Amino acid sequence: MTKTKVAIVGASGYTGEELVRLLLAHPNVDLVAATSRQLAGKTLAEVFPRFAHHKAANALKFSDSDAKQIAREAGVVFLALPHGLAAEFAKPLLAAGARVLDLSADFRIKDASVYKEFYGHDHPAPDLLSQSVYGLPEIYRDRIRDAKLVACPGCYPTSILIPLRPLIRRKAIDRTRILVASMSGVTGAGRKVEADYLFAECNESVRPYGVPKHRHLSEIEQELSILAEEKVVIQFTPHLVPVNRGIVTTIYADIAGNVVKMDPAMLFNSAYGEEPFVRLLGDARLPDTKNVAGTNFIDIAWKIDKRTNRLVVMSAIDNIVKGASGQAVQCMNLMLGLPETAGLI
Amino acid sequence: MTKTKVAIVGASGYTGEELVRLLLAHPNVDLVAATSRQLAGKTLAEVFPRFAHHKAANALKFSDSDAKQIAREAGVVFLALPHGLAAEFAKPLLAAGARVLDLSADFRIKDASVYKEFYGHDHPAPDLLSQSVYGLPEIYRDRIRDAKLVACPGCYPTSILIPLRPLIRRKAIDRTRILVASMSGVTGAGRKVEADYLFAECNESVRPYGVPKHRHLSEIEQELSILAEEKVVIQFTPHLVPVNRGIVTTIYADIAGNVVKMDPAMLFNSAYGEEPFVRLLGDARLPDTKNVAGTNFIDIAWKIDKRTNRLVVMSAIDNIVKGASGQAVQCMNLMLGLPETAGLI
Amino acid sequence: MTKTKVAIVGASGYTGEELVRLLLAHPNVDLVAATSRQLAGKTLAEVFPRFAHHKAANALKFSDSDAKQIAREAGVVFLALPHGLAAEFAKPLLAAGARVLDLSADFRIKDASVYKEFYGHDHPAPDLLSQSVYGLPEIYRDRIRDAKLVACPGCYPTSILIPLRPLIRRKAIDRTRILVASMSGVTGAGRKVEADYLFAECNESVRPYGVPKHRHLSEIEQELSILAEEKVVIQFTPHLVPVNRGIVTTIYADIAGNVVKMDPAMLFNSAYGEEPFVRLLGDARLPDTKNVAGTNFIDIAWKIDKRTNRLVVMSAIDNIVKGASGQAVQCMNLMLGLPETAGLI
Amino acid sequence: MTKTKVAIVGASGYTGEELVRLLLAHPNVDLVAATSRQLAGKTLAEVFPRFAHHKAANALKFSDSDAKQIAREAGVVFLALPHGLAAEFAKPLLAAGARVLDLSADFRIKDASVYKEFYGHDHPAPDLLSQSVYGLPEIYRDRIRDAKLVACPGCYPTSILIPLRPLIRRKAIDRTRILVASMSGVTGAGRKVEADYLFAECNESVRPYGVPKHRHLSEIEQELSILAEEKVVIQFTPHLVPVNRGIVTTIYADIAGNVVKMDPAMLFNSAYGEEPFVRLLGDARLPDTKNVAGTNFIDIAWKIDKRTNRLVVMSAIDNIVKGASGQAVQCMNLMLGLPETAGLI
Repeated sequence: MTKTKVAIVGASGYTGEELVRLLLAHPNVDLVAATSRQLAGKTLAEVFPRFAHHKAANALKFSDSDAKQIAREAGVVFLALPHGLAAEFAKPLLAAGARVLDLSADFRIKDASVYKEFYGHDHPAPDLLSQSVYGLPEIYRDRIRDAKLVACPGCYPTSILIPLRPLIRRKAIDRTRILVASMSGVTGAGRKVEADYLFAECNESVRPYGVPKHRHLSEIEQELSILAEEKVVIQFTPHLVPVNRGIVTTIYADIAGNVVKMDPAMLFNSAYGEEPFVRLLGDARLPDTKNVAGTNFIDIAWKIDKRTNRLVVMSAIDNIVKGASGQAVQCMNLMLGLPETAGLI
Repeated sequence: MTKTKVAIVGASGYTGEELVRLLLAHPNVDLVAATSRQLAGKTLAEVFPRFAHHKAANALKFSDSDAKQIAREAGVVFLALPHGLAAEFAKPLLAAGARVLDLSADFRIKDASVYKEFYGHDHPAPDLLSQSVYGLPEIYRDRIRDAKLVACPGCYPTSILIPLRPLIRRKAIDRTRILVASMSGVTGAGRKVEADYLFAECNESVRPYGVPKHRHLSEIEQELSILAEEKVVIQFTPHLVPVNRGIVTTIYADIAGNVVKMDPAMLFNSAYGEEPFVRLLGDARLPDTKNVAGTNFIDIAWKIDKRTNRLVVMSAIDNIVKGASGQAVQCMNLMLGLPETAGLI
Repeated sequence: MTKTKVAIVGASGYTGEELVRLLLAHPNVDLVAATSRQLAGKTLAEVFPRFAHHKAANALKFSDSDAKQIAREAGVVFLALPHGLAAEFAKPLLAAGARVLDLSADFRIKDASVYKEFYGHDHPAPDLLSQSVYGLPEIYRDRIRDAKLVACPGCYPTSILIPLRPLIRRKAIDRTRILVASMSGVTGAGRKVEADYLFAECNESVRPYGVPKHRHLSEIEQELSILAEEKVVIQFTPHLVPVNRGIVTTIYADIAGNVVKMDPAMLFNSAYGEEPFVRLLGDARLPDTKNVAGTNFIDIAWKIDKRTNRLVVMSAIDNIVKGASGQAVQCMNLMLGLPETAGLI
Repeated sequence: MTKTKVAIVGASGYTGEELVRLLLAHPNVDLVAATSRQLAGKTLAEVFPRFAHHKAANALKFSDSDAKQIAREAGVVFLALPHGLAAEFAKPLLAAGARVLDLSADFRIKDASVYKEFYGHDHPAPDLLSQSVYGLPEIYRDRIRDAKLVACPGCYPTSILIPLRPLIRRKAIDRTRILVASMSGVTGAGRKVEADYLFAECNESVRPYGVPKHRHLSEIEQELSILAEEKVVIQFTPHLVPVNRGIVTTIYADIAGNVVKMDPAMLFNSAYGEEPFVRLLGDARLPDTKNVAGTNFIDIAWKIDKRTNRLVVMSAIDNIVKGASGQAVQCMNLMLGLPETAGLI
């Protein structure tokens, strides 16, 4: 079987490195290009010694190719670039016929004015927004198959939207009273060389940040509003905790109507019983990031609190895999008509 | 000046060890006894090598003394025992005239039936409940001064009650809609030799636990109800994160009445402007456990979220110091008429 | 192709869990039994939630089977038991015709009196010692293929013997002056529920232990002596460091003869150029446990120190994979005539 | 009693921050100036929130003062600057009459050509080298008292020189065969904003570095040679381990002469029995960084290995306290005629 040629633009960060890991091991694709202005000329093996045994990692050098060159080499292109820059690359890639999976925020927000509100600058390619598909297979599987441009979700949104979807869709909770607390590992900040992310600043440290209006709220509320078919506004607080990988999200929601009739197990099983990457823990076990680290799974547990008439839903993902690169590969599998789990289990 | 003789019963755990640290360095007291059945006969210096330079730590041996003996040796006794056992020790100590600071849950709950509901056994000394004082100086300073029996608060309650007190008292928030997410370091579980707390089970792990009805809810809701002068029920989820020390608590509350009139800075400053161990960060900075580790401070920050009409209040403490042993020493200082900060700053 | 049926005896510890991970994913074997007295009746998925998506992990329950039963079910049996107990299990398994890979120390030491010296009790099956093969494929590949009983090496010995082998064999270093310092992650101690391995005792802690005569010295010196064809005694100090996985070993050796003629690159390349799990970093890069974590690789680097006429050789492995379970699977692959890397890359 | 006015030049790094902590709490000095080009104008409390309760930390702002201004304000000045820059500041400070404690490497090396060999540039103030005193009180106590310019030792040298001193001086070991392996926490690298020191690059990582010729070798060998009264060359390998603070050093030395006569307890007790910051663990206990973290102590243990005729000596310090800022304050206490432990215990 011919393998599809794929490329990564901006492969030097944590999501880029994880894409390298997943794509080198993927049975149906060939990683033919990886770009990084800064690392151009070095092999993948030199930059990422943990891949040093891969022949391809020794053969392939980081390049400084432009979009046209990349589109000539690869039919599928992952963008692991900062927002703003990603959209600028996507334009010529799409024009040249490549299919694009963007891991930045650039194509997640349908409304360019909301993008500007949260990201602080005009959208660089507003005309492309209408054709992008939000890359959450558990919601948009069919549309992803045919997409030319996939906007891969952020890590927090993934950990929040999958658990909330069946609850919102089935009107099991009060959509006006959703509160979320999340805890993320430090790779969530990217390979950003800033004092805040030095070892000694993060180790033995737990801290909230981005309060009260973290950027990811824009895509979370957009998607919840689509599910609810009316405007949804939530409360969301992220916290930084000293692990490399993983997000735990705890969601509080008022149960709509009679608690006696609330059956979260039924709701979750009916929504996700067949999903390859959703593991339902039920109401007897609780999630732990160590069980999902390095995998594309999302673990979901729940508890009904009769004292408060609330449902507490908890999820755990690896922020770099299901929260970024793994989910992007899951989308690519759909786009290429491959088994959805190819290269991921 | 004569120093007061103090003893620690059950000094082998993390709160016991921290009491040793604080009392050895305290200018106004002499640690004259430390008990531990298991460690009896060993010096404090042998068991805790980090105190090996203290003369007293080399001179003082763990004993297996009973309450009567202890009461003969010390006028003030700290109990760092499991719940249930603490009450059994407190009885004869009080009868013998000692003043007791109990770090267990035994005397925190005023209602013996609530104690039984949350702790699973009958209260061992219900007749003592009425005379115990809840050891949170920021609320009960005056009563602590004269107390014979102080029930030192739990770590989570400390991190929740101090921030909520002025908001509840001044009716600035809706007391029916308070939600709390907390993250605790692993010493919070005590020096419990269980597989769940092994290094490799906690490192690279983030996990909720005790959902939805953690034992500390009993004292949190008791104290909030007293403050509100009506029954308060809250939502509370603790999470375990891989740090040795520290709790971050994030509290969500619906603002009561008009958000425009809400002035948290005024409320917090008026309540805590003079408190020696409360540091108000305001709405521009956020708390971080690393700033309070090893200290008796609580750092408090807040943000008004106009989008949701909520107030988000965040606190950080060292769970073993302000959340346990440091606060107990603060109470002792009050009981002995010493400067409240003696041995703590 | 028919898959070989394999079993794990004592699957509740870290090496047992890692065997479960590797064998569930292995393309050529079926894990048909896993024993644990304590966990009998629970499924693998219940005990190890990170395998919850595997059908086999949900189907297979921990059993309390004895050796005879196991030998009826599986042709290849891994023993992940404490020393002493392992030998007792091996005997009936071998008698019943099973091939055994023992991860304990029981069959590593050829001389029962040395075993007693280092392990403190008589060897439970001295008659089996002569037929066991030391399971280090880089040295004993051919003998492993035909072995009935493989004694899988300890983690420290693996990290020391592979780097030293070509140097000793080619007499490039003075075998009387070898000094080793190793640093190990906490899983190296096993899932031992002891206070020393609690999170708060290991986190923010670095400490030597087992000085000066760690048990692994017995097998290290045995194997070095075989390579040198004369008695070798070395200096070895292990240290515990707060990571889950990984060993870094730093070896100091006096260069034999003329430093100018010393060519470690040639020696290592000629010995290991074709080895599938040895990655030679040369003298320009240094090893890091994070590059081998979760893999069966050993990374080896070296530096000649002209100032002291010494060679400094450094290696990194994952103590649970190349240092235990992965290496055991590598041996199994050899025994079954499978590609040596099957299920490991 | 009048307090001595002290200043810190370059107070933004980890050693600077630790000096702030120690000097704010010191009973006999007033911190009157702290400089940082980058932070000028901000208060100490703003930059270091953990000192926010100190009045002085709120009153004192970082300044961008030059040496002359500083010398007018303070009689004692700590330099926490990069090497090269420190010497440039020291010159005018000394000329203006200030006493200087330099925490960089600039005045540690007596021979400007050795400085150039190890630090790669000409010494900026070679004429000052003769008057500087190496700030290790356990060796140079008397000379430190009268010094105008103290060169505070590096962290590794402190952990190596104190244990080796009595062994070298009493010729108990073979000075030609000393090998050292050290493990350091990440603050040892300073608050350097480089990718290598990001949390996710250090967490779950153990790695040697600076092999075979780390810069600290220059001062280690200089001081050992002075003690031995002949040239000493040693082997030294540092490793980076994921803790915030702490160095463990393991030293291997051939016992000189008859092992039967070797009495390390006598040697260490006679050398350090009265030292306020040296804690001798003997041959029954082993050091652990967690016992010295946050303190100015060095813990020393030893084992005789009869199998190899070697002595293994192990030490633990906090790299930022005894390995840097605490030791500098210890030197200052000597210079000011204060109790040596003032502000340190």
